[in-house]
Amino acid sequence: MTDSPLTSPAPSSRPSGRRANQLRDVRITRHYTKHAEGSVLVEFGDTKVICTASISERVPEFLRGRDQGWLTAEYGMLPRATNTRNDREAARGKQTGRTQEIQRLIGRALRSVFDLNKLGARTLHIDCDVIQADGGTRTASITGAFVAAHDAVTKLITAGKIAESPINEFVAAISVGVYNGQPVLDLDYDEDSQCDTDMNVVMTGAGGFVEVQGTAEGVPFTRAEMNALLDLAQSGIETLIAKQKVALELLSV
Amino acid sequence: MTDSPLTSPAPSSRPSGRRANQLRDVRITRHYTKHAEGSVLVEFGDTKVICTASISERVPEFLRGRDQGWLTAEYGMLPRATNTRNDREAARGKQTGRTQEIQRLIGRALRSVFDLNKLGARTLHIDCDVIQADGGTRTASITGAFVAAHDAVTKLITAGKIAESPINEFVAAISVGVYNGQPVLDLDYDEDSQCDTDMNVVMTGAGGFVEVQGTAEGVPFTRAEMNALLDLAQSGIETLIAKQKVALELLSV
Amino acid sequence: MTDSPLTSPAPSSRPSGRRANQLRDVRITRHYTKHAEGSVLVEFGDTKVICTASISERVPEFLRGRDQGWLTAEYGMLPRATNTRNDREAARGKQTGRTQEIQRLIGRALRSVFDLNKLGARTLHIDCDVIQADGGTRTASITGAFVAAHDAVTKLITAGKIAESPINEFVAAISVGVYNGQPVLDLDYDEDSQCDTDMNVVMTGAGGFVEVQGTAEGVPFTRAEMNALLDLAQSGIETLIAKQKVALELLSV
Amino acid sequence: MTDSPLTSPAPSSRPSGRRANQLRDVRITRHYTKHAEGSVLVEFGDTKVICTASISERVPEFLRGRDQGWLTAEYGMLPRATNTRNDREAARGKQTGRTQEIQRLIGRALRSVFDLNKLGARTLHIDCDVIQADGGTRTASITGAFVAAHDAVTKLITAGKIAESPINEFVAAISVGVYNGQPVLDLDYDEDSQCDTDMNVVMTGAGGFVEVQGTAEGVPFTRAEMNALLDLAQSGIETLIAKQKVALELLSV
Amino acid sequence: MTDSPLTSPAPSSRPSGRRANQLRDVRITRHYTKHAEGSVLVEFGDTKVICTASISERVPEFLRGRDQGWLTAEYGMLPRATNTRNDREAARGKQTGRTQEIQRLIGRALRSVFDLNKLGARTLHIDCDVIQADGGTRTASITGAFVAAHDAVTKLITAGKIAESPINEFVAAISVGVYNGQPVLDLDYDEDSQCDTDMNVVMTGAGGFVEVQGTAEGVPFTRAEMNALLDLAQSGIETLIAKQKVALELLSV
Amino acid sequence: MTDSPLTSPAPSSRPSGRRANQLRDVRITRHYTKHAEGSVLVEFGDTKVICTASISERVPEFLRGRDQGWLTAEYGMLPRATNTRNDREAARGKQTGRTQEIQRLIGRALRSVFDLNKLGARTLHIDCDVIQADGGTRTASITGAFVAAHDAVTKLITAGKIAESPINEFVAAISVGVYNGQPVLDLDYDEDSQCDTDMNVVMTGAGGFVEVQGTAEGVPFTRAEMNALLDLAQSGIETLIAKQKVALELLSV
Repeated sequence: MTDSPLTSPAPSSRPSGRRANQLRDVRITRHYTKHAEGSVLVEFGDTKVICTASISERVPEFLRGRDQGWLTAEYGMLPRATNTRNDREAARGKQTGRTQEIQRLIGRALRSVFDLNKLGARTLHIDCDVIQADGGTRTASITGAFVAAHDAVTKLITAGKIAESPINEFVAAISVGVYNGQPVLDLDYDEDSQCDTDMNVVMTGAGGFVEVQGTAEGVPFTRAEMNALLDLAQSGIETLIAKQKVALELLSV
Repeated sequence: MTDSPLTSPAPSSRPSGRRANQLRDVRITRHYTKHAEGSVLVEFGDTKVICTASISERVPEFLRGRDQGWLTAEYGMLPRATNTRNDREAARGKQTGRTQEIQRLIGRALRSVFDLNKLGARTLHIDCDVIQADGGTRTASITGAFVAAHDAVTKLITAGKIAESPINEFVAAISVGVYNGQPVLDLDYDEDSQCDTDMNVVMTGAGGFVEVQGTAEGVPFTRAEMNALLDLAQSGIETLIAKQKVALELLSV
Repeated sequence: MTDSPLTSPAPSSRPSGRRANQLRDVRITRHYTKHAEGSVLVEFGDTKVICTASISERVPEFLRGRDQGWLTAEYGMLPRATNTRNDREAARGKQTGRTQEIQRLIGRALRSVFDLNKLGARTLHIDCDVIQADGGTRTASITGAFVAAHDAVTKLITAGKIAESPINEFVAAISVGVYNGQPVLDLDYDEDSQCDTDMNVVMTGAGGFVEVQGTAEGVPFTRAEMNALLDLAQSGIETLIAKQKVALELLSV
Repeated sequence: MTDSPLTSPAPSSRPSGRRANQLRDVRITRHYTKHAEGSVLVEFGDTKVICTASISERVPEFLRGRDQGWLTAEYGMLPRATNTRNDREAARGKQTGRTQEIQRLIGRALRSVFDLNKLGARTLHIDCDVIQADGGTRTASITGAFVAAHDAVTKLITAGKIAESPINEFVAAISVGVYNGQPVLDLDYDEDSQCDTDMNVVMTGAGGFVEVQGTAEGVPFTRAEMNALLDLAQSGIETLIAKQKVALELLSV
Repeated sequence: MTDSPLTSPAPSSRPSGRRANQLRDVRITRHYTKHAEGSVLVEFGDTKVICTASISERVPEFLRGRDQGWLTAEYGMLPRATNTRNDREAARGKQTGRTQEIQRLIGRALRSVFDLNKLGARTLHIDCDVIQADGGTRTASITGAFVAAHDAVTKLITAGKIAESPINEFVAAISVGVYNGQPVLDLDYDEDSQCDTDMNVVMTGAGGFVEVQGTAEGVPFTRAEMNALLDLAQSGIETLIAKQKVALELLSV
Repeated sequence: MTDSPLTSPAPSSRPSGRRANQLRDVRITRHYTKHAEGSVLVEFGDTKVICTASISERVPEFLRGRDQGWLTAEYGMLPRATNTRNDREAARGKQTGRTQEIQRLIGRALRSVFDLNKLGARTLHIDCDVIQADGGTRTASITGAFVAAHDAVTKLITAGKIAESPINEFVAAISVGVYNGQPVLDLDYDEDSQCDTDMNVVMTGAGGFVEVQGTAEGVPFTRAEMNALLDLAQSGIETLIAKQKVALELLSV
């Protein structure tokens, strides 16, 4: 079931009919494509992202000569992942500022739970490609990419390339926002395009904050709203991390 | 069943165990993503391509003022669609020559069966994005893109935007090649990377040739080999067009 | 005086010797260069940014035909604004992801206090160019750019081009972070490069939050730390807005 | 004389008055510019291309450490080589898809007759620059570039840098097409811009096919047409290879 | 004859054996390619440049709505025009600083003798493409481009598109330099690569200076040297303008 | 005092009221920003340029393995340094031809007085960034950059990294032009935008010419005008070099 464990006191008026604290249907499918060391299709309702983790036995220039690894992330969207077609970034010849912002966020989020010394002198490339967008693509990407990265790490351990997992903790992400004056969890596109405040939260399995990015799209938000949003996010991320563990067969349903 | 109607006289030694004239398992899934006017997942064995057809109510500069439409195609590959990760074209800031060559081919192939005057002053954007590659991505793209384009055209007709279909004929594509001295149909990656000759053939439902692109990778090929390859291609494309019709519910299985 | 109004209970061990809740010396110099409609040199200690506001009597494509204005921001750094020389972005041929992220933030922050309908069909271009960097360049940029934008708006009113100010509120920004386990206000470079958590906060004169962007650089942060950081930010921004008002001669010292 | 050895059964109605199987006047001028190791002006009627072959004592990254050479080709057109001026690719900042397609074709065509192991660890750079275009620039380029490459190889042998020629065979190219319903050889611009089918054929001196690229511009083509086109191409290429040999003084007129 | 009319008092020690005040053999061939409105091959010894003048019935954005024309110039070099192969600018994706500097110079030089009001609302595009370089490519370009532009203007007048020539004067250019301590005219590559001072001079038929660009490559130059260089340049340009007139059949030999 | 030592025979009608041979108020402020090895704010009246000299312990590819240094320069302008806002080059993705021309000039000018063998295997990066433009930005840049480079060299000597200064001479630059028929020194923007001839002159402390770049914007200029302009330039540069020496405390006021 996809509900967060919090009880929702009153029915919400969300376009989807979800309660304020209700996640969309979340599905994590491992081994989605065959070539990558880790490959996950993550779905948050109608938002669908292919997340792969690829290992390369090289490190970027700035790490040469140090026995340390690196993790980097790239993000893309198929041109018609959205309601109207966007220009293909490869054809335009550059990534938008939004794309760069998102891929930097994904990279920081995953690095926050990695001990890169334990990865050895290799790079883990995370690719998150949105094949269908309905809000929350960056949070779905982080949540799915963690699972793909976990699978890639397991391959390294199994192959005897590293002795110990460089992963310190689980990490997942969710969006929250103020929609029609009400704090709600896991915004879909209808909500996202009309909400007053949009906040993306990245948290670890131990409940620490890795990133909080809140933006007032319309009227500024208050401390009280911020607190309500963080409560929602915390409950949502607990559910997401449980789902990651079930997908990885570290937790039974 | 995926066999071509030709009888294969002798067992082949193809890596996949297929007969020389045997296609891979071909699947065409319509309505694969929800936003595009036409959206198809096409699979030729392990090669998987998302093909979307998007309608925009504009035409390129060179057609302004004429009551005529346009059809254009773009092609991409997820970085880890292949065995080793390729650089993301959007991050590198340009499309490779190979990508441009393929997207030009897809565009020409589809335009060959369109009467662009009947499309009205609008553009049909075809996007073919490979999510998993195992040889034959360009031929799978053309075959799937036709179905996506067909669905988009049906939407235009249903919406009363055009009176008559601009589609004159079906079109599909297949690769053939000389592998281990033997002409074979529908090369997978293992064959493609080792074959002497690789030929991509685009044909219409009426059996006309739209494109023939043959390249000797190793030793040059002979007229006799070329004829054998064209025979194989013709039989394969007949099967593919039948599958397109089944997918479009214009033919029952 | 540059202190925040909060009392600091204990001496801090900050490299600069500042108290935990103490801003650097903040100076806002208007009319810094002669051509721009608004031109400000803003200094947060050794961080120095030239902020200009330029009016153009055009709007971007997506606003054509609507009687509404736009505000956009760009950010840059002189190559040797920092301790070691960075490549010149104009020579490299593209802006880094960091640059784009910052200029998008500056634009959103200023637009949050503008009623773009009252601006008329014109664009306010904000340019923030760092001539010396010592941490906090994005928050200094927002704080200074608001003053430059205010001057440009005054020119439009004086010239009779608009009847009413499009500015709804003041806006300013400050960074806060956890340094050596202690929440501190207005990080300089020495602190920024070593802190565990770095948070940029944008607030309005009325005390609403416009942006909160917190990142755990090392260990994740807790709700308690987040609350302490937001308290510090709130006090700092009150001081900054008072300084903006003094600079604009709307408040006497 | 420029006729192909085939007898032409009936007078053609080609704009140039040529018979269906008649090449344009073909001229190959060696030592056209003074710096390159091989430098040829090739003319197919009014199509004029400068082909140079330059030797560099380096190989691309992917061949480092192997004792093997490489051959690569680039293609360009002066902006006013054509009837109306085209944008200069260097000023636009990128090569068109057409340019890339052509230069990839030239490279493959020449590599097909080279034993790159015998070239040693060096690169042969082929540059084909069209100074006047009247159809068939890519086939003229391949035909001329082979002669330039041959001269460069001779220099390497004469200088004692290689013991044995890496050239296995001659190679040349010609276009054929269906014009006004009739298969014709060596399309000029008037024919090319109006023909139904356009096919470029690359063949070796021994009569093997290296590339066959046929495109239906209007109505699809049939197997019968394809066979007629290949016959024409074969006869044309025999004539071209004889002309290459005469130019290289390996055959007397 | 290619000598300048000045008498040279003493034998020079130039690598070419030329006297200090002796131009290389200069040839101007009109109608060199068939498509352009003006097309000239200009040769200064072994330096060979194709100069075309193309008319387009449009003006750049900044001249829209004014009944005035524009003249613009672009410059390029074939990759193997020089002793060692240079990267192709179209493939690298940008023009070098040197290329831009030269094409700006060519444009300014030609515009200096044009009355753009008399050209009408159209653009004259000058393209100078070096097919073989041996020093002095920019001065040969200017000298040849003037003749091509003159031919294009004549076409406009003949076609009745303009009533009066927009050309006020002739213009030509030459390089001079201090080689082995001696001021010499028209540097070839051997001299150019070793000289102390290199100066390019553009002058009109009436003897006015349009551009003087002198650079000390080694030791700075003196006023006396500068005066000697300008004397040489003046004599050389007189000769070049006579050759332009002969080529244009405005002067008999 | 800012006058040149020449006596000015008659009052001029310059917009600024300056005499024909009068420089603007020139100020050279060292140690302007804190990070660079040399950092100067140079002001020629309202033209203000930040010039920094940065040392890096590397040399470009073409100098690898030789014990020789390099000096390179880059130039930029803040978007609103000028009367109307210019596009930011970093956002456009390329430097204009004008920018490249200027930075190449600055580099040549400074290299002309450097013995790069004495610099050792390191690079001196000069950055000139115009924060306010009022004509003469390139000449101010050269004049200021020399002082910044001198400071950086002094740091190298003080640090014991080099034994001897690689600087052979002082170098400075000034513009001269024909305004309203009269040769004048140090053009400001009002003059520059309307003058007939604009000439930039770079000279050494010993009075040698390093660069002379004169352009007729309107009517061509004569030898007599050229001589008058060079006289003015020479007197102006003497004054500028004296100011450089005073700024460097090598000369008392």
